[in-house]
Amino acid sequence: MTTPRALAIVAGLGPGISYGLAHKFAQAYDLVLLARSASTLDPLISKLESDPAIKSLKPGPKIVGIPTDVTSVESMSAAVAKIRELGKPVTLAVYNVSSGFNRSPFLETDIKDIENGFRSGGYGGAVFSKAVLPLLLNAVGKVTWESGERVNPTLIYTGATASYKANPGMSAFAMGKWSLRALSQSLAREFAPQGVHVATVNIDAIVELERTKGMLAGVEDGKLKPAEVAETYWGLHTQGRTSWTWEVDVRPWVEKW
Amino acid sequence: MTTPRALAIVAGLGPGISYGLAHKFAQAYDLVLLARSASTLDPLISKLESDPAIKSLKPGPKIVGIPTDVTSVESMSAAVAKIRELGKPVTLAVYNVSSGFNRSPFLETDIKDIENGFRSGGYGGAVFSKAVLPLLLNAVGKVTWESGERVNPTLIYTGATASYKANPGMSAFAMGKWSLRALSQSLAREFAPQGVHVATVNIDAIVELERTKGMLAGVEDGKLKPAEVAETYWGLHTQGRTSWTWEVDVRPWVEKW
Amino acid sequence: MTTPRALAIVAGLGPGISYGLAHKFAQAYDLVLLARSASTLDPLISKLESDPAIKSLKPGPKIVGIPTDVTSVESMSAAVAKIRELGKPVTLAVYNVSSGFNRSPFLETDIKDIENGFRSGGYGGAVFSKAVLPLLLNAVGKVTWESGERVNPTLIYTGATASYKANPGMSAFAMGKWSLRALSQSLAREFAPQGVHVATVNIDAIVELERTKGMLAGVEDGKLKPAEVAETYWGLHTQGRTSWTWEVDVRPWVEKW
Amino acid sequence: MTTPRALAIVAGLGPGISYGLAHKFAQAYDLVLLARSASTLDPLISKLESDPAIKSLKPGPKIVGIPTDVTSVESMSAAVAKIRELGKPVTLAVYNVSSGFNRSPFLETDIKDIENGFRSGGYGGAVFSKAVLPLLLNAVGKVTWESGERVNPTLIYTGATASYKANPGMSAFAMGKWSLRALSQSLAREFAPQGVHVATVNIDAIVELERTKGMLAGVEDGKLKPAEVAETYWGLHTQGRTSWTWEVDVRPWVEKW
Repeated sequence: MTTPRALAIVAGLGPGISYGLAHKFAQAYDLVLLARSASTLDPLISKLESDPAIKSLKPGPKIVGIPTDVTSVESMSAAVAKIRELGKPVTLAVYNVSSGFNRSPFLETDIKDIENGFRSGGYGGAVFSKAVLPLLLNAVGKVTWESGERVNPTLIYTGATASYKANPGMSAFAMGKWSLRALSQSLAREFAPQGVHVATVNIDAIVELERTKGMLAGVEDGKLKPAEVAETYWGLHTQGRTSWTWEVDVRPWVEKW
Repeated sequence: MTTPRALAIVAGLGPGISYGLAHKFAQAYDLVLLARSASTLDPLISKLESDPAIKSLKPGPKIVGIPTDVTSVESMSAAVAKIRELGKPVTLAVYNVSSGFNRSPFLETDIKDIENGFRSGGYGGAVFSKAVLPLLLNAVGKVTWESGERVNPTLIYTGATASYKANPGMSAFAMGKWSLRALSQSLAREFAPQGVHVATVNIDAIVELERTKGMLAGVEDGKLKPAEVAETYWGLHTQGRTSWTWEVDVRPWVEKW
Repeated sequence: MTTPRALAIVAGLGPGISYGLAHKFAQAYDLVLLARSASTLDPLISKLESDPAIKSLKPGPKIVGIPTDVTSVESMSAAVAKIRELGKPVTLAVYNVSSGFNRSPFLETDIKDIENGFRSGGYGGAVFSKAVLPLLLNAVGKVTWESGERVNPTLIYTGATASYKANPGMSAFAMGKWSLRALSQSLAREFAPQGVHVATVNIDAIVELERTKGMLAGVEDGKLKPAEVAETYWGLHTQGRTSWTWEVDVRPWVEKW
Repeated sequence: MTTPRALAIVAGLGPGISYGLAHKFAQAYDLVLLARSASTLDPLISKLESDPAIKSLKPGPKIVGIPTDVTSVESMSAAVAKIRELGKPVTLAVYNVSSGFNRSPFLETDIKDIENGFRSGGYGGAVFSKAVLPLLLNAVGKVTWESGERVNPTLIYTGATASYKANPGMSAFAMGKWSLRALSQSLAREFAPQGVHVATVNIDAIVELERTKGMLAGVEDGKLKPAEVAETYWGLHTQGRTSWTWEVDVRPWVEKW
């Protein structure tokens, strides 16, 4: 728990990593969850609120879903207006937005896919960051943990192997992810001395999800569990400011790399 | 000289590196030079054509300027139509387009600048590549040097230090350049086995130009000379196909890095 | 606490990061601490044992110092024999050994310094790893946390900025550190599928120590606090095996990079 | 040809890349070739001298073999004494020494193999560099090409994919190669401003050799030809000093990476 009770924002809510993050952050934070549509947000928020680990918290976290296109300046700006109305400091924000991707030969890749890779990659990351950084800067030095220690406002991006390696047939996805990593590195250098910790987590894994059930079927713990990677995000957020990490990679024990 | 006489395309013609490239390539190639406006192209083409080293060539190179916005699918498509009319194989293409950049704090950086960084970075690179790769693929195995050796069609991108390092205040420029490097790496992997050599040259330098005259004024050979770096591009183009390079860095001897 | 009570090994005990690690690990582990001489080990172990946070633990950790040259196969082998006598599983081992370094022009650098950089870098890391990996492998699947969750045996190396960047005048130090990072990457890939988590922490900081008191004097939290970075090592050790990190960087909020 | 006629040194002569380098350099240079034993040097020098392309040169190059253990300070020092006796400026030196390597599980890898990896990697590179850098520095500004342009003394190291990627079972080889790359980067930064160009070529290929005949048998141009990669080394050597490259990768067109 933080004093005063602060807000964590997760952009790109879905059933995978972002849900795991929300579940973890709810232990200490009120939540603002962003996804394109209420039809994505509502069932996941219901699931969160009815999770025994969340229900048992006293006081329980307030969880607000705001349908938002985080790659649109206007939409993101409207979301921030609503977040400000909540009247709480924001000390944690995660950009966990991804385009889907298909491997396709470059000459068969639509230029729109390249556009879209950038939209949900670096561009969306920038739109989101421009919106939330003022909130995070605002909270520097003003929120503490129950222990009395300083809460360092933190902005985390979810990357992928494709954030630093561009495989054949993956240009659209990789271009977006590389540009997001560039953003993250530039902002880490600019905002750390202002008190905001900027970090990146590169996921090298298939995530354990309903729709990935058939994959790596026989391999024990072969897929990344959102609840496990959430600990790594949380670890980044709680690092003391003499020891901040910019980038970590995560992958299952059996992953080849 | 190549047999049959082939074409080199340089996109992003200006007075610096690209002019040096055109000057070098003209020793062996006819040229198609692309820049946004005829007012940029015309004086540089006149300068090229009147250069003694070019004038002395027999037969002299044919140099065609096509005003083109290489970041527009339509404009680039029109340019390719004109190139096809020239009826010559294309075995060398260079993407040397850059947005200018200003260091600015992220929260004062217009989202348009981020958009533009990507336009002239990865996106423009992709538009250009989608247009010229069919031409390059078409020339695989069909053109030789006077010596009889195979000319390997080559696609080269100009990068920068900001292609792999994102400094504070440089997010817009870096995001564009990182995405271009991602494109280059993905295409290098995809097209090498099809016979097209894809490479990147990362420039870590101030270029010697009229407008940089005042910079590093007392330092001998402190600025990159386009004629010198042109040899490195040429070296990439003439590598035998058992020994292709994807990426090189270049910087003046006195540069700190 | 682990079940059964397990051992953590820290190689390269000194007053800085390694002391912070020992202090952190003692919350859950018995400790084996390695340093070249008893005169280094004894006062630090006394300090640890008399630390209120350690003294209050019931049962308190057993802390054993073994004077060892971890860059010597024989000495390390003798240490392992003593560790085996303790009869406990080993689930955490940290290689935190460094040569000191002085910037010196390469032609004035003694070849012995280059030898020594490698001794305490990759070579010492390899000697240590060959000695402790059989112990760690032995503990795979056999130790749990009080919660019942699996303890994943973990081997962590301390690196530096010089692990991936070789500055002028720093060749001896950098060569040792790069070779250690290579070792760490190779072993991470080899041992993860066998159940041992191998990771690297690259420190980009001046460490807060008695002898660094005068440095960055006016800068609040400008130096890395061992207690803070210890949380990051602990975070690596406690990652679930679907989400293992190989490498993290850490630096103070005000550090330029 | 250079004025005055200068010397190129190739360390690690064998039938592969280094032979290709010697063959290329002989077009312009007298040669000093180093290998452990006369039984390696003599037949290769005979082969070189009887090569039609070399025999046709007027004046032909002087080719001197000096049996040398380049990883021994004493042996390398004796070689330099002999080189000095030749009374010629040295403007090109290549370190092309490699241990062989076998993939082996780390716990079955002899610590001697790790020692040896470093010997022929960074350590040998350092011994060689300490010996030849004074010669190279001595030649700065004193030698020109026939065109009158400055010859920039150049020191080049041969690396491998294992110079930046450490695969499982490859720790000994990778540790040596990473340390050599670190050396190369540190020296590039230190000696460029003194006029000596330091560069690295990372080979990602099987080299076309008698003993690799059976490998990639059906693949046209699937193996790296020493004569082709020699052009890349030569290109590095002849770069103007406003445009020096530190690192290039090379691989056959069909290589997966």
